[in-house]
Amino acid sequence: MATTTARRPVIRFTSGHRTSRPDTLAVEEPLEIHLDRGAGAETFTVTMRTPGHDLELALGFLVSEGVARRPADVLAARHCPDAARDTDGRPTYNVVEVTLRPGIIVPAARYRQVSSACGICGTASIDAVRTRSAHTVHDDDVRVGVATLARLPDALRAAQRVFDRTGGLHAAGLFTADGELVVLREDVGRHNAVDKVVGWAFERGLLPLRGRVLQLSGRASFELVQKAWTAGCPVLAAVSAPSSLAVDLAVEAGLTLVGFSRGESFNAYAGAERITG
Amino acid sequence: MATTTARRPVIRFTSGHRTSRPDTLAVEEPLEIHLDRGAGAETFTVTMRTPGHDLELALGFLVSEGVARRPADVLAARHCPDAARDTDGRPTYNVVEVTLRPGIIVPAARYRQVSSACGICGTASIDAVRTRSAHTVHDDDVRVGVATLARLPDALRAAQRVFDRTGGLHAAGLFTADGELVVLREDVGRHNAVDKVVGWAFERGLLPLRGRVLQLSGRASFELVQKAWTAGCPVLAAVSAPSSLAVDLAVEAGLTLVGFSRGESFNAYAGAERITG
Repeated sequence: MATTTARRPVIRFTSGHRTSRPDTLAVEEPLEIHLDRGAGAETFTVTMRTPGHDLELALGFLVSEGVARRPADVLAARHCPDAARDTDGRPTYNVVEVTLRPGIIVPAARYRQVSSACGICGTASIDAVRTRSAHTVHDDDVRVGVATLARLPDALRAAQRVFDRTGGLHAAGLFTADGELVVLREDVGRHNAVDKVVGWAFERGLLPLRGRVLQLSGRASFELVQKAWTAGCPVLAAVSAPSSLAVDLAVEAGLTLVGFSRGESFNAYAGAERITG
Repeated sequence: MATTTARRPVIRFTSGHRTSRPDTLAVEEPLEIHLDRGAGAETFTVTMRTPGHDLELALGFLVSEGVARRPADVLAARHCPDAARDTDGRPTYNVVEVTLRPGIIVPAARYRQVSSACGICGTASIDAVRTRSAHTVHDDDVRVGVATLARLPDALRAAQRVFDRTGGLHAAGLFTADGELVVLREDVGRHNAVDKVVGWAFERGLLPLRGRVLQLSGRASFELVQKAWTAGCPVLAAVSAPSSLAVDLAVEAGLTLVGFSRGESFNAYAGAERITG
């Protein structure tokens, strides 16, 4: 039911060698939180999370939002296994419903509407991104050398002006396939750093980012692969590990996803055919 | 105007010594994105970000959301310096307005409503959290030893079952003031790991988390300090750096904020009076 890890095939590049093996990844799936205040359930929010302890997650989120302040505020919390099924018709356990004490105030501004409560699962999330992207990346035949990919994390760090002073900023760097830095942006939020790079390119009429490589300082989540796809960037490289759904989305998009860059070695989780040498 | 770093006083604890000095932190501030589709501006979303390249951030976000697909979709993007002022009456440059081509479709589900466009700045964000928290932490007189705080990161890693296999999960661990682990939760999202811990305690009637220490595997943002405060936890420790607004919120709450834990040394950014030895 609650699967925390998943295995995906990966190609490991180590100083000239490439080996295939399965790798264990952290699972990422959407969780939709419904609130029932006595007049039927409404969608409150959707968050990407690792399955497990979902009711705790929903209750803790409501505490953080100031909605649930004491135990009596919550009458019940449960999974709705019938509310969402995957493409094979199995319950996804990705919807939870919290019944609040009647009369409790939830500011309308706190609600995060989503288009549909039906079929919420990784597959549905991928479908939603597909309809959102104006660009395709699967037909981008750029090639990037192993040595180039291996040195991008160091190039990113060297270009970060702020990191050494604060230790608190994520970076996203756009590189050519030869490893030349095009633009670098930093932010406390990794997703913001990527948005700034994409916005920089948008302002200059440079989208889609065909033939480019986007290097991230951290790990790769579903949302970051989504941003690469919607910007039409064929290669996304992260210093740390991707999630299961990040890999699944990259496979669906035909995007090259590189992770776990450590010195001369890194993993390719999708699109390894673009990596040469 | 766009300040990327800020200095805050910090107390550095290094194997028995404590020294005061200023530290440079990454700035975190809210950015409110307004959309004008020809019928006046509406709030689209608010994101916590590091100031700088705000228009790129707004445009890139709209590309990621599938709202802006080509350059002609955006007629203008600009700061609204008069839309928000800080408590001293100065423009905050925390509101940007994007004018879209008339007729462009923005699904209502994509809008993230917020309560007010007035005065959006770090101070307003802190005010919003204050009204949200059911608990106070400034009056929690727990004391935590230097040696205890120094070993919590290792204790957290030792307790993480999944991390070694995937390298992709954040952890949040709730500890007693003596360093005994109470509960640990993991997730691809750091905020989710904290919500799971808080929800665990909420289910058991254990809120507020008086006298407890919450240890995080990553860095400390505004949102994570908010979650500690709303759960009534007086001590928040992060392995990496906090943002400027995380420190400001901790000071406001009377919360002890520890960061940059490295072996025997760490920094106290707020509430150092709770640290003994």
